Amino acid sequence: MISILDSNDVPKQLTIYDIAKEVGVSAATVSRAISGRGYVSEANKTKIMELVKKYNFKPNTFAQNLQAGFTKTIGYIVPHIGNMYFANVYYEFEKWASRHGYMTILLNSKGDYDLESKLLNSLQEKHVDGIVIMGGRMDEIHLPDNYVKEIQEVGKKIPMVSCGAEAERFGCSGIYTDDEKGVEELLQFLKSRGYQRILFTGGADQYYPSYIKKKAAYAIGEKLGLDISVRWLTGNDVFSYSAGYDSLKILLEEKKPLPEVICGINDYVALGVVNCALEAGLKIPGDLAVTGFDNASITTMTPVHITSISPRYEYYGKKVFNTLEKLMQAQGAVHGKTSLIKPEIIIRSSTI
Amino acid sequence: MISILDSNDVPKQLTIYDIAKEVGVSAATVSRAISGRGYVSEANKTKIMELVKKYNFKPNTFAQNLQAGFTKTIGYIVPHIGNMYFANVYYEFEKWASRHGYMTILLNSKGDYDLESKLLNSLQEKHVDGIVIMGGRMDEIHLPDNYVKEIQEVGKKIPMVSCGAEAERFGCSGIYTDDEKGVEELLQFLKSRGYQRILFTGGADQYYPSYIKKKAAYAIGEKLGLDISVRWLTGNDVFSYSAGYDSLKILLEEKKPLPEVICGINDYVALGVVNCALEAGLKIPGDLAVTGFDNASITTMTPVHITSISPRYEYYGKKVFNTLEKLMQAQGAVHGKTSLIKPEIIIRSSTI
Repeated sequence: MISILDSNDVPKQLTIYDIAKEVGVSAATVSRAISGRGYVSEANKTKIMELVKKYNFKPNTFAQNLQAGFTKTIGYIVPHIGNMYFANVYYEFEKWASRHGYMTILLNSKGDYDLESKLLNSLQEKHVDGIVIMGGRMDEIHLPDNYVKEIQEVGKKIPMVSCGAEAERFGCSGIYTDDEKGVEELLQFLKSRGYQRILFTGGADQYYPSYIKKKAAYAIGEKLGLDISVRWLTGNDVFSYSAGYDSLKILLEEKKPLPEVICGINDYVALGVVNCALEAGLKIPGDLAVTGFDNASITTMTPVHITSISPRYEYYGKKVFNTLEKLMQAQGAVHGKTSLIKPEIIIRSSTI
Repeated sequence: MISILDSNDVPKQLTIYDIAKEVGVSAATVSRAISGRGYVSEANKTKIMELVKKYNFKPNTFAQNLQAGFTKTIGYIVPHIGNMYFANVYYEFEKWASRHGYMTILLNSKGDYDLESKLLNSLQEKHVDGIVIMGGRMDEIHLPDNYVKEIQEVGKKIPMVSCGAEAERFGCSGIYTDDEKGVEELLQFLKSRGYQRILFTGGADQYYPSYIKKKAAYAIGEKLGLDISVRWLTGNDVFSYSAGYDSLKILLEEKKPLPEVICGINDYVALGVVNCALEAGLKIPGDLAVTGFDNASITTMTPVHITSISPRYEYYGKKVFNTLEKLMQAQGAVHGKTSLIKPEIIIRSSTI
């Protein structure tokens, strides 16, 4: 007789193994009895259900699902959840995941490749049902073959969605913002307001999102007859508030004619431009218009509210979950399909 | 003979149950053979390890730990991960958790009590080893008895750390910022710079952090001989950028003498005050000084950088993990101990 039956208290974390041992059946039998799926003799079923009732036992869904090959757990890797973009998509994703009975493990890779590899390994060992990776190496253009191969190998074993521009490289499914469409929407809007000379700033060519925006800006700008220039800064923090601030500061020091519009590669960069402009006594949008990407909450936490391209977080997070869920349910479903999300422009007071 | 042995491919998510079935032993035996803990006959051990090698099988740590009563999984509930404060603490927590082999499930309660109850229930069903709850009902002063009782019940079964001001109520362990010390640090600093008339804004009495800051501001202000006033706004969004903006706007409309310093209850509120002041043509810190709490990244994303009280995220997150880990390891450890974290002031250009 094991100890649980000698006590009136329910011990911590009673498992189906304890019940199985007591009744003298396998854990699988207990699982079948509780779930009501599969054969269990009436005698054993009665004994099991009596214990379940007696100890007010909550079946461990991990254990149950494990026997069915599922953990109902998803792994989600981001570089840093303190980045609003990742936090907003995660929030929407998690909402749908938990509604569908999935619990999501959120891991920060800190943009460290070795750590990301370790985390991926841990997720495999935990046998998560699916994996989402956002940002970090997903967005880099030049990657060593072994990195790409590593992701491909994981994707062969576990359903995976990459929220990066080039999911196809990794052989997994991809959901990402259609940056080309975003730039098109932005430039068409700017043209409609009469703007001509437009500068993009705050990106880096080695990351797909910047690279695609730059390419699109030149191509669509030409089509629309706009005067487009792109000027990235170099350094570690090209996507930051200071990158935007410094961009305009340098332009002002050069004393050449300013563009009519500065488009920050994201809202942090745009906010830096706005604040540098205000400090320099420039009027926004009178002397200079400013736009951003991502529709972060900071766009309305400034003296002028920033026009921005929204990735539609609610739709985005839901789409990532739906895509992953389909892959998880249809084991053997074909990976490698990519869906683009059409962003939308949110017009605010930083443009006329 | 089951199908896995008829194929050269490792099927998805091969589990110890598959190996157990093939060798004709129990899953527990496979687990013992792989972990090297407990008795397994030499013959069975050889058969099991041959299969493990043949299929390059990664033992499912969930399954292994389940048998030992652990899932090596932690549940972490916040109202909304898009709030920088929660995101920053989580980031630091998760760093330590994953270093120690724990995977953390991050759930958003959206401040919805029914949802929070559901999530707590799901975490119990998953038999997580520990739970962290931040914000939401943890911070509310007036709570129905059944809420408090619910948390108490969970805490009896699963090690739990509350990052709220009154963890004792819930019978769980607490880690939180010593808001009283934060206010003391702030007021001592302001006094040292010669400020006298100080206004606190942007909180609400029904939340512990605001309530404690208000009480401390009056008590410590009196001790230091300062002229303190506290003026909360009413409405849904009292902790927001707009609350700060509106606070100053109302003061300006009243045309009474302004205070020398406005202390926002957090950095969003402080930023709202800053921007309203700049729009009104006030110089910061010349005409008005502004401070915040939380040391969010937005404190340096404004024309004047905001002096703020830092909760020391790195230390905070680590402390939460360490406290929870001790509880998880010492089953039956006494709950209800609370540790306060002494915050520190970060002086920037919004004060002289």
